[in-house]
Amino acid sequence: MTAAGFAYRHLFARDLPPPAPPWRGFPKYNFIGGHNDPLRIPSTAMAEAASAVLQRDGTRLALYNFDGPQGYRPLREFVVAKAAQRPAITCSVDDVLITSGSGQGIDLVNQLLLEPGDTVILEEFTYGGALTKLRRLGVNIIGAPLDEDGLDIDALARVLEDLGSKGVTPKYIYTIPTIQNPTGSILPLERRQRLLALTRQHRVPVFEDECYADLTWDGSGPPSLYSLDPQQVIHIGSFSKTLAPSLRLGYMVAGPDVMSQLVACKREMDSGTGALDQMVVAEYFSQSFGEHVGGLSETLHEKLDTMVDAVEREFGTAVEKMWYPKGGIFLWLKLPDRVDVTKLVVPAASAGIAFNPGPEWSCNPAVTKSHLRLCFALPSKDVIREGVAAFARVCFEETGLPERSANIRRSAQN
Amino acid sequence: MTAAGFAYRHLFARDLPPPAPPWRGFPKYNFIGGHNDPLRIPSTAMAEAASAVLQRDGTRLALYNFDGPQGYRPLREFVVAKAAQRPAITCSVDDVLITSGSGQGIDLVNQLLLEPGDTVILEEFTYGGALTKLRRLGVNIIGAPLDEDGLDIDALARVLEDLGSKGVTPKYIYTIPTIQNPTGSILPLERRQRLLALTRQHRVPVFEDECYADLTWDGSGPPSLYSLDPQQVIHIGSFSKTLAPSLRLGYMVAGPDVMSQLVACKREMDSGTGALDQMVVAEYFSQSFGEHVGGLSETLHEKLDTMVDAVEREFGTAVEKMWYPKGGIFLWLKLPDRVDVTKLVVPAASAGIAFNPGPEWSCNPAVTKSHLRLCFALPSKDVIREGVAAFARVCFEETGLPERSANIRRSAQN
Repeated sequence: MTAAGFAYRHLFARDLPPPAPPWRGFPKYNFIGGHNDPLRIPSTAMAEAASAVLQRDGTRLALYNFDGPQGYRPLREFVVAKAAQRPAITCSVDDVLITSGSGQGIDLVNQLLLEPGDTVILEEFTYGGALTKLRRLGVNIIGAPLDEDGLDIDALARVLEDLGSKGVTPKYIYTIPTIQNPTGSILPLERRQRLLALTRQHRVPVFEDECYADLTWDGSGPPSLYSLDPQQVIHIGSFSKTLAPSLRLGYMVAGPDVMSQLVACKREMDSGTGALDQMVVAEYFSQSFGEHVGGLSETLHEKLDTMVDAVEREFGTAVEKMWYPKGGIFLWLKLPDRVDVTKLVVPAASAGIAFNPGPEWSCNPAVTKSHLRLCFALPSKDVIREGVAAFARVCFEETGLPERSANIRRSAQN
Repeated sequence: MTAAGFAYRHLFARDLPPPAPPWRGFPKYNFIGGHNDPLRIPSTAMAEAASAVLQRDGTRLALYNFDGPQGYRPLREFVVAKAAQRPAITCSVDDVLITSGSGQGIDLVNQLLLEPGDTVILEEFTYGGALTKLRRLGVNIIGAPLDEDGLDIDALARVLEDLGSKGVTPKYIYTIPTIQNPTGSILPLERRQRLLALTRQHRVPVFEDECYADLTWDGSGPPSLYSLDPQQVIHIGSFSKTLAPSLRLGYMVAGPDVMSQLVACKREMDSGTGALDQMVVAEYFSQSFGEHVGGLSETLHEKLDTMVDAVEREFGTAVEKMWYPKGGIFLWLKLPDRVDVTKLVVPAASAGIAFNPGPEWSCNPAVTKSHLRLCFALPSKDVIREGVAAFARVCFEETGLPERSANIRRSAQN
């Protein structure tokens, strides 16, 4: 029956992403992605939590969305309790929607507010996944300037005025105020207040992504934008960063008008978020959240310092600018203008190195060709040191920079 | 700061689904949805499986998609082993993609093949969720006639010829050949072979949904369409029906050209399917699948018989036609033409009863107003008996049918 063959390719829809190549495993020096430290996954405690919650609540799995379409109630209760602390959010379980990762939160806000041709404002350097989603939706992306403390509010005011003079009101401003991705900054309280006043004046919703906000080095941070103005702000967060990325669990906090619409959109998007992931996280984090994120942040801070040391040693003055993050899992760097990092991707991959080229993390890819992002949560300290040295070697071979590579010096000494 | 208020509603995109009402819990007589029997959830065995797999593989949760973008390898290995048995599919782990429920499988096939204005063929009565997704995509839906053995192949040939005479080639035919939803039929082998020959001649892909295929009363069934022609068929299945719906786990089987594109589309849709759900199902089902589905099918068969008895007792001759299913979790009925079941939804809800009105499960809603679907996996036998009686009472009050309700007779005797 298969003699005639049956070709699918000509039947495919237009505008699909390119087909995925066969998966060959992870690179040796894996400096991309939101992976976490394997030694900080509390396997035994999670096993105990899973066993306890399944013994107690297992039969409830027989029903779709057994606590309603907003997710497992004990997990929403945990979000409420957690939010009351650090980001100082006062909310109830009715204001919380559990999502299949914070990426689904972004999809839901985009579905709620955006149509092709709309305009949105993002931070000039921002989460690549958000950019990819927006580009596929055909919306106009405007970058707002950042400095070492996050959004430059005066510059943002000029962006809004400029758009206003053209009759354009952006559909939202997407911001990562606490541990900005990729620069790792924390927006000070005074700027948060000015941001809210400015966007309120222009009637622009604020879309706040707090994916990394629980992982600050000092365990604190200013109140979230949502806590300062629950009416105007849609807030998303994640358990992928604080516990384990492969769990695919995030959450949204929003007022009733927005929430009722988000719930309806999520219902069409899936039939609920996986219950076991929700149950185990609720069970474990209800007991151990503070202790867990404290220990994880300490580990991440040490790994960051290992990576900063390695970058300084291996790249020296070839690093024109380094943003030292105040938490999180990534380091954002700028090499000299004459280094086009997009040309390093293939040779780096041949040497077992993966990194995020700046253009993928930028509203204006053309002017970010010398930037790059290195993630440090997954690799061990030894792998960080080796990998950064190997990356410097690739960079030197391709561009002549760093000019006097420490590796070359070391080789000469041997 | 909130004095001025901030209204979102005028910012919402067009064409959103209606906002979700606040969730008030489940109805007492819940005859809708793919829920399962709570007493058949193996809580203790799942607790043991979760504990074992987390102790062994927990640290791997630190990486997104730690076995690659197609899902947890032991779960794919289980799908390969399971598929080799009942549906007689010969495939490798590279041909299997784990999805966040089989609904995501439908979304992925739709993204792969469909553009607005395209035409697809579905069975005249079919899964409501598939219809909802297709209507939102703006494609033309053509219904193909069913009889007690599933698709009527001669009638399908006429549908294809008619479309062909208009220059229309459908993008796929979506079929649920084993435990058709909602009629519960099983397509005989000879019809499967004719279906494949016919669609191959017309160059139409076949999209096979085997969500319920593991739950036949006699534990068997003809080979899947995929096993008969892997080149032409895309196959999806689910663990939501065989184990627990709130786990949100399904799978797809497809050849390399289609698979590489599905993987790319899924990567944009989410960042992987929740790992804990995958790990626990792989651990439990690798040991206990046959025993589990055997016991579950037995329970479901008993509940079906309870429901059939109740319907016959309470509705009598007011049931014009009843499709006795060969497996699964639902019963499809037709009342006399003068009963419009859509008008029963609100009064039934007031009496604590939820059912699926026929138009939601039909390509031609206007001609299915007297049909309805009743799911029997979740409620206990007592609840089934009480609920069907209560439903007959509502139906009598609204329509005068069933003419001499058993309830009324019973009341008269008391």
